[in-house]
Amino acid sequence: MTQFLALDWGTTNLRAWRLDYEGQVLAARQFELGVSQIARGEVEQVFIRRIRPELHAERLPTLMCGMVGSNMGWQAAPYVDCPAGSADIASQTITVAQAPLVRIVPGLRCDGLTRAPDVMRGEETQLLGWTELQGADARGRHLVCHPGTHAKWAIMEDGRVARFVTAMTGELFDVLTKHSVLGGAGEAEDEAAFSEGIEAAGNGQALASRLFSARARVVAGGADAASTRSYLSGLLIGAEIASLPLECGAVNSNTIWLVGSASVRGRYRQGLRRWNYEVREMDGEEAVLAGMLALVRRGALHDAR
Amino acid sequence: MTQFLALDWGTTNLRAWRLDYEGQVLAARQFELGVSQIARGEVEQVFIRRIRPELHAERLPTLMCGMVGSNMGWQAAPYVDCPAGSADIASQTITVAQAPLVRIVPGLRCDGLTRAPDVMRGEETQLLGWTELQGADARGRHLVCHPGTHAKWAIMEDGRVARFVTAMTGELFDVLTKHSVLGGAGEAEDEAAFSEGIEAAGNGQALASRLFSARARVVAGGADAASTRSYLSGLLIGAEIASLPLECGAVNSNTIWLVGSASVRGRYRQGLRRWNYEVREMDGEEAVLAGMLALVRRGALHDAR
Repeated sequence: MTQFLALDWGTTNLRAWRLDYEGQVLAARQFELGVSQIARGEVEQVFIRRIRPELHAERLPTLMCGMVGSNMGWQAAPYVDCPAGSADIASQTITVAQAPLVRIVPGLRCDGLTRAPDVMRGEETQLLGWTELQGADARGRHLVCHPGTHAKWAIMEDGRVARFVTAMTGELFDVLTKHSVLGGAGEAEDEAAFSEGIEAAGNGQALASRLFSARARVVAGGADAASTRSYLSGLLIGAEIASLPLECGAVNSNTIWLVGSASVRGRYRQGLRRWNYEVREMDGEEAVLAGMLALVRRGALHDAR
Repeated sequence: MTQFLALDWGTTNLRAWRLDYEGQVLAARQFELGVSQIARGEVEQVFIRRIRPELHAERLPTLMCGMVGSNMGWQAAPYVDCPAGSADIASQTITVAQAPLVRIVPGLRCDGLTRAPDVMRGEETQLLGWTELQGADARGRHLVCHPGTHAKWAIMEDGRVARFVTAMTGELFDVLTKHSVLGGAGEAEDEAAFSEGIEAAGNGQALASRLFSARARVVAGGADAASTRSYLSGLLIGAEIASLPLECGAVNSNTIWLVGSASVRGRYRQGLRRWNYEVREMDGEEAVLAGMLALVRRGALHDAR
């Protein structure tokens, strides 16, 4: 085989690429078929009947990362402990029962801020891609932020994931705008309210109090309810940025990397600059593809080819 | 008239008492008829056809506090600025249009942690009741916590509300258990998980990260999913207690007052003792009744009698 299939199969979304072993993309598709939208036990059939044919990839070795490897996905892949790099993770991909061509990338686990561990599934592949694309510049310690529903802040050491901290900023935003008194009117982006929210985050302390300001500024401060959504976004991202770099520990530079989509990078860039960080950016899709390729080159599919 | 009707009419609940001017309770009822369950414009009819007859209070002067005085209630009562005591608030009760016997207690407003103000509606009456029941002991500065959906931490100075800070701890708990990945299985109270949650709150910093530990301890730490709810309750209350007394500013004592129901006081008591505060407690219903009586004695119903 001179080609393989790569899937980033998350909770709410699935991205698939047919690639050659040089990394050239031959086909790409996106499906709104996250594992949370598929009944347990149906994942295999969705893959065989829907995904594979659409990419003309019926007999290709396949590497999958993301929540597909959790107990809500196809088959659970045990977490690999940090520190971990491409070689560690490639050697611990799991073979899916009854699908000899399919391998699933394991997630990562490390010590958390509390006595509980912290975990990721899917973001490790983008972090490995960051390492691959950085090449020699990945040497040393770097702080890489992957914004999202469950944002991940990773300390990279010589190209390996040394440690990371999750912040469920995106999910807090979703549940508060949909289900709490902070659900504002409308979806409009309000730049001034976003900036006001970043300032309102202060040092990130007392978040449950600062959140209430999203309501109080409307009922007693004269703000327009239509600006609540942007204010809340700024407040939550601001609180994350005020806290997480410190919680992650010192890095020998003032630079923070953002890996993700352009729209979410833009919001985080604004928050990071408020705190005078130097921001560097990488596209999330480029990172996941580079990570998949790095894993394949280190043998993740060697017995599936 | 030798009697009056007192209503604590909140977002989700309504408590009503018929009282004499000595404060003796002649009748008491509770209704699951918070203003959020009643169509805008129906509040007056609910009061006239349902509440008043059940308490045999058709022609009695009536004092109402709580969200009934908001723009989602019967008629909006403008906020009174802190510092404010019984006399200030009694003199600013509003008369409800077309209901000459009905007065609504205004809420309070003060400077918040952010540039937005902070607000309360309903809790001011319990705080005034605390002052009334404390008598001479209310002199000086005291920190009074009123736990709830939107917990209020008030600095009381010589019996007046000098300032307060809201923490939307109860609402965060509700939306996260009902609508996020942190929704655990079951409703059981798990004492050990609650204590673990209080510890996991740490110094209250990086809350969006600490919250994620409620999931990670189950998927990667071996904890029982049935304990998630209690863990999350401990974590949110712990984070509030780690932050709020400091945010409220210094009080000349290590004592914190809890005003509320016995069950919620118990959870906060445990969190406060973890931080070595001395805890004193007052029942929320006794406080609201004492507050209503204090307002009436300072003239809140003088032209309605």
